[in-house]
Amino acid sequence: MLEFDLIDQVRARIHPRPDVILGIGDDAAILQVPPDRQLVVATDTLNAGVHFPVDTAPADIGWKALAVNLSDLAAMAAEPAWCTLSLSLPDSDADWLDRFLDGFLDLAARHRIALVGGDTTRGPLSIGVTVHGLVEPGRALRRDGARVGDDIWVTGSLGDAASALVLLQQASEPMLASACEAGPILPADDAVDLRIAEALAGLRSRLDRPTPRVEIGRGLAGVAHSGIDISDGLLADLGHICRGSRLAAEVEVDRLPYSPALAESFGDARRYELQATGGDDYELCFTAESAMRERIGLIAVANATPITRIGRMIEGEGVRAIGRDGAPWHPQRGGYVHFSD
Amino acid sequence: MLEFDLIDQVRARIHPRPDVILGIGDDAAILQVPPDRQLVVATDTLNAGVHFPVDTAPADIGWKALAVNLSDLAAMAAEPAWCTLSLSLPDSDADWLDRFLDGFLDLAARHRIALVGGDTTRGPLSIGVTVHGLVEPGRALRRDGARVGDDIWVTGSLGDAASALVLLQQASEPMLASACEAGPILPADDAVDLRIAEALAGLRSRLDRPTPRVEIGRGLAGVAHSGIDISDGLLADLGHICRGSRLAAEVEVDRLPYSPALAESFGDARRYELQATGGDDYELCFTAESAMRERIGLIAVANATPITRIGRMIEGEGVRAIGRDGAPWHPQRGGYVHFSD
Repeated sequence: MLEFDLIDQVRARIHPRPDVILGIGDDAAILQVPPDRQLVVATDTLNAGVHFPVDTAPADIGWKALAVNLSDLAAMAAEPAWCTLSLSLPDSDADWLDRFLDGFLDLAARHRIALVGGDTTRGPLSIGVTVHGLVEPGRALRRDGARVGDDIWVTGSLGDAASALVLLQQASEPMLASACEAGPILPADDAVDLRIAEALAGLRSRLDRPTPRVEIGRGLAGVAHSGIDISDGLLADLGHICRGSRLAAEVEVDRLPYSPALAESFGDARRYELQATGGDDYELCFTAESAMRERIGLIAVANATPITRIGRMIEGEGVRAIGRDGAPWHPQRGGYVHFSD
Repeated sequence: MLEFDLIDQVRARIHPRPDVILGIGDDAAILQVPPDRQLVVATDTLNAGVHFPVDTAPADIGWKALAVNLSDLAAMAAEPAWCTLSLSLPDSDADWLDRFLDGFLDLAARHRIALVGGDTTRGPLSIGVTVHGLVEPGRALRRDGARVGDDIWVTGSLGDAASALVLLQQASEPMLASACEAGPILPADDAVDLRIAEALAGLRSRLDRPTPRVEIGRGLAGVAHSGIDISDGLLADLGHICRGSRLAAEVEVDRLPYSPALAESFGDARRYELQATGGDDYELCFTAESAMRERIGLIAVANATPITRIGRMIEGEGVRAIGRDGAPWHPQRGGYVHFSD
């Protein structure tokens, strides 16, 4: 039987938590929620070829499947506690599962989240994860809490994951890429070639192994008014905060944070697009009143992660992007930079 | 965008609970667990062609996807509270989704379980559900609680779902079926023909719309020593109680409960097989000391559902089935009667 062997294989590798009364191996898990906490639940499924390139390493798939879910807990300011895993596999491959678990359980251990249940079924490769977190009553970050005058902030840097996809797509269509004026800067000599290869590897790791901003999210409980994680692109996700809070957002594209690798691989115009509309970054976007600027600076330092002020919440509706020249800025292309579109 | 339209469509149809602080539409749901309850979590995924025939009606798929998960809560004696839904759909089909929700939300309303989150992705049809229930500390039914001398009980009747699959398979291979001596009793005239068709429809509804034994499960908290739901077949699932409790089980096959439709469609030998090894029934199997017989009878009456004593727990290991002649009984065929094998 596929199912029981895989369950034993998973069970042998997990670390328990004292609040797991009963873990993997019964009809359900039994968990103890502290009386002074609310339960936070998110679920996200990754399908091969839709949410990750089919050539992605099994350990990276395991990492990413948990990371995108932890990112949802981070966006709520919740502390990770427990997760379940539903695996659909084309066939029973113990070696593939072990490597998948390498990535999944590595990230789980870093955030002390316990795998407490799940199921395995035969089918096209698909990974469904449900995460459970804990938060103090009333302190979760929601999309509907932004206020007029709030600063808008983002963690880390934007556009790396989408740029990796663009470069991967262009690598598989070299003729098309060289004909594209907005494509990556082409290497002029071997030294540049090597630098580009390094940049590519760095960008690809942002796509394959996103860093869920769990500790920053926890730090924002009681500090930020609203928050969301950036999975569909900054403008799209900030739009959810606007709709939830019945406000508008004004964002300066030139303030959007970027990595050196991104700047090295794309000109400004293309870079703005990737930062503003590229998905899969799993950074946090949040709003907070200006009195919190110093406190947010301390959270950035404590987590060794840049947190950048990119705009502010205003009356109205929708997200208004402003270019370097002070004029309204609009993305030239549609949602193709998001892999799951 | 596929995702946001579908989310709105789902959100418009759900009923809230007061303990849902924040439901569908943010990065995660926020839920209030009562301080005197433990959280019970189970997850099960259904894939088209693996867990249900591809011709299954969308409303039946919706019902079954939730039913198999509620059955896990029932097997833990937990009260259903909240669920999440991960839908992979080949394309965005609002009509299909509405009919799917007809079945899913009908069953959800019957058990007052609130849909609080989920995601929709493009991919081969697959439905992942995670259910959350609540149970009094220490009163959940586990697989490791059976004691020597316990009676073994099953709810409802066994073998109907598997028999529907056998009949469906034979209907698509009529030559093979008529050549099979253990096949269904063939109709001799029109009257019998009609009776068989009715029996078939009844059996098929057991396969498509299993009844999770939630209220019976709740009634067994503090009454039964151990419990499991029958998804892989009685002998296989009772085997889990034996392993968990480090005991053996002795079961009399002639005591296994069956529906009139099953007896009408199969001879005794074939019927025993279907009852003992057929999956997908989602009845409960549980063990309780003999002093509880009267109380269990009252639970059966209160729920208008037969609960049948089929054997007892003894020292040793494994499940021993005893035939009508008192000799050991063994299934003739393997696990083919379970659709997901």
